[in-house]
Formats: sequence, C-alpha cells, structure tokens
Amino acid sequence: MKSPIDFYFDFSSPYGYLASERIEALAAKHQRSVNWRPVLLGAIFKVTGTQPLTFVPLKGEYTRRDLPRTARFHGIEFRMPSKFPIATQAAARLVVWQRGIDAGRCAPLAKALYRAYFLGDRDIGDPDTAADVAAGNGLDLSAARAAIDDVVLKDELKRDVDAAIAAGVFGSPFVIVDGEPFWGLDRFEQIERWLASGGF
Amino acid sequence: MKSPIDFYFDFSSPYGYLASERIEALAAKHQRSVNWRPVLLGAIFKVTGTQPLTFVPLKGEYTRRDLPRTARFHGIEFRMPSKFPIATQAAARLVVWQRGIDAGRCAPLAKALYRAYFLGDRDIGDPDTAADVAAGNGLDLSAARAAIDDVVLKDELKRDVDAAIAAGVFGSPFVIVDGEPFWGLDRFEQIERWLASGGF
Repeated sequence: MKSPIDFYFDFSSPYGYLASERIEALAAKHQRSVNWRPVLLGAIFKVTGTQPLTFVPLKGEYTRRDLPRTARFHGIEFRMPSKFPIATQAAARLVVWQRGIDAGRCAPLAKALYRAYFLGDRDIGDPDTAADVAAGNGLDLSAARAAIDDVVLKDELKRDVDAAIAAGVFGSPFVIVDGEPFWGLDRFEQIERWLASGGF
Repeated sequence: MKSPIDFYFDFSSPYGYLASERIEALAAKHQRSVNWRPVLLGAIFKVTGTQPLTFVPLKGEYTRRDLPRTARFHGIEFRMPSKFPIATQAAARLVVWQRGIDAGRCAPLAKALYRAYFLGDRDIGDPDTAADVAAGNGLDLSAARAAIDDVVLKDELKRDVDAAIAAGVFGSPFVIVDGEPFWGLDRFEQIERWLASGGF
C-alpha cells in the first residue's frame, strides 16, 4: 500500500462536500487510503485575508449558481443549506475524536456529517445536532456530545489546523499527494493523472 | 450559426492565457464563434475587494506551483513572466481597436499579445512593446501605437469593463454561453457539456 492521500476539508465548504463524495473512489482506484483532515477555514482565512466565497461581491452570486450546476455535472445530490456558513468546530472535533479511537470510522462519520448539512439541511454547527448525527452513524450519543467539549480534542484540532496552514492549506477541499498540493474539486483530474503516473 | 461565446480575459491573467489557447477549438467544435472581450481586473477587483492570486498568502505560493503544472496537464507552453502582474490597458485597447476595424483580427492579435507575455516574457504593459507585438502580427505600428492613446478607445474599453461587471464577470478567464456564466479554465469541461446539450 502506498502512502495515504491527505484530504483537507471544512464542514461548511460546499465544494468540500462535493469532493468528499468522490475522494474515496479516486484514492481506491490507485490503491491509496485517505486521511480525513477537518480544518477550520475561519482560522485559515485570518492568515490569507480572504473570506467565504459567497460573501464576495459578484463571486457570491456566481457561486450560488455554480454549486448546484457543478453538483449536477458530477451527479452528486446537493442542496444549499438555509444557514450558511456555520461554525464547524463541533463536527471537526468529532472526526478528531474518532481518529484516536478507530480511524476507520472517520470517513463514514465525516460523510454523514456533510450529508446531514448539505442534503438534510441540519445545522451541524450546533453541538447537539452534530452529536446526534454521530449517534445516527453508530456512535454513542453522550460520548460524542462530551467529545465536542473535550479540551484535549479541542487542542488537537487547533494543532491540526496550524499544521495544515504550515503545509500550505488555504482552502477546502485541499488534497496533498506525496507532498504535491491540489486545491479544489477542479483539480481531481490532475490528481488522477498524478496518482496514475507519479507526477507529470 | 449559433450565437457567439463571450470570452472575458485580462492580459495579465495566467489562467486567462491558458484558456486563450483552448477557447477557439472548444467553440468551433460546437459551431460557435468567440467574442474576445478584454477586461481590466484592476477595476473589477475594486468591486469585489479581492486581489491578484499571487498576492494572497499561501494561495500565491500554490498558484506559482499550480500554473506550470496546469499548463503541462493541458499540454500548453507556459513561462511565468519576470514582471507580474502588469497593467493591461495598452494590450486591451489594441483588441478594442481592431474590433472596430476587422473583428476577425481580434483572436490572432489577442493570442499574439498573450504569447508575447507568457512565452516571450515581453512586458506588454508597455505601450511601445504592445504596439510592436501588434506590428509583428501584421498591423501598422504607428496606427497601433496611436490606438493605445486614443481617448475614444480608452472610453470604449472602460464601458466594456463596466458592462462585464454588470454581466457578473469577476475574474479571468470568464466565459458566458447563452447567458450561463463559467469562471475559470477549470470549467471548460462544463462548458463543453453545456454546448453539447444546451444545459444540464
């Protein structure tokens, strides 16, 4: 088995959600596993001085049109949530929590959280809702709820975000393959070729 | 013949250059012509509050890596100019000038200017250099140089940029097909499907 692909994402990122529906198949096709690495764009945007796509004049309107179109283009179900963006600490901490217990649960948990938000319009920014989604994904409800408030997990996520920034991550989705960075769902074709040929 | 595709670009935009090498073949495949519409990102960025990609922390470093890689991915020759970004009024006015004389010359002129900058490392922000490139493309040198300072053409370009902003253009390249907006070289696959099927 070759080294895993690092998949960085923020739970409030619509393009991150779309990518989350494709990253595993892409990796598996090339005998790779995926490290699911939730980040907090709020912290990252403080470094880059940028802001959420939908807040930018002109770009915001475009994005609201491009997102459902891009979802249709890829055949992925998508619905813009009524509350957007949201705080994503709760959802991210749940993934960090499971990584320390059973890393194999990170992918189904992350996808369940993303789908709750981008298909079910559930506000996973709310700790109780996020824990409830985790419970619906087979985890213990009270343990999940406690994990969200766990200071150790909070610090671990903070270190993760700092490490992501140090690795050059500035958006979501962001994929690093053997040190090579790829930003955006738009780069999945390049990732595909990179995985197939070891670079180009 | 169906209605033309609107291709908006700024002469200092590397992704715009890459797109300029592909837009005609894409359009022709679907029996479309291309309106070459130079814009000024400097004016547009005042509306959106954004800045050139390479100025943004983290994103700038990524872009300097992504650009040559994306060029290789598409098999397009590319070299990051030593002076970047540049003012693009001179080059843009030359295209506006030719549009009023012989619109068929806009495409070869725009491509010659882009290649002078992104292959030949020539500073087409300089009016004399831009006029020289036009002369190398079969146009009269002194007429080209005069066009760059022509107040009527200057105003026409300004109106073009205002119209582009009103149409929602906020970046380069930007393509509008029958009212549907597509931002970025990354969207060429979607444009292709849109042209083939009239929407999706």
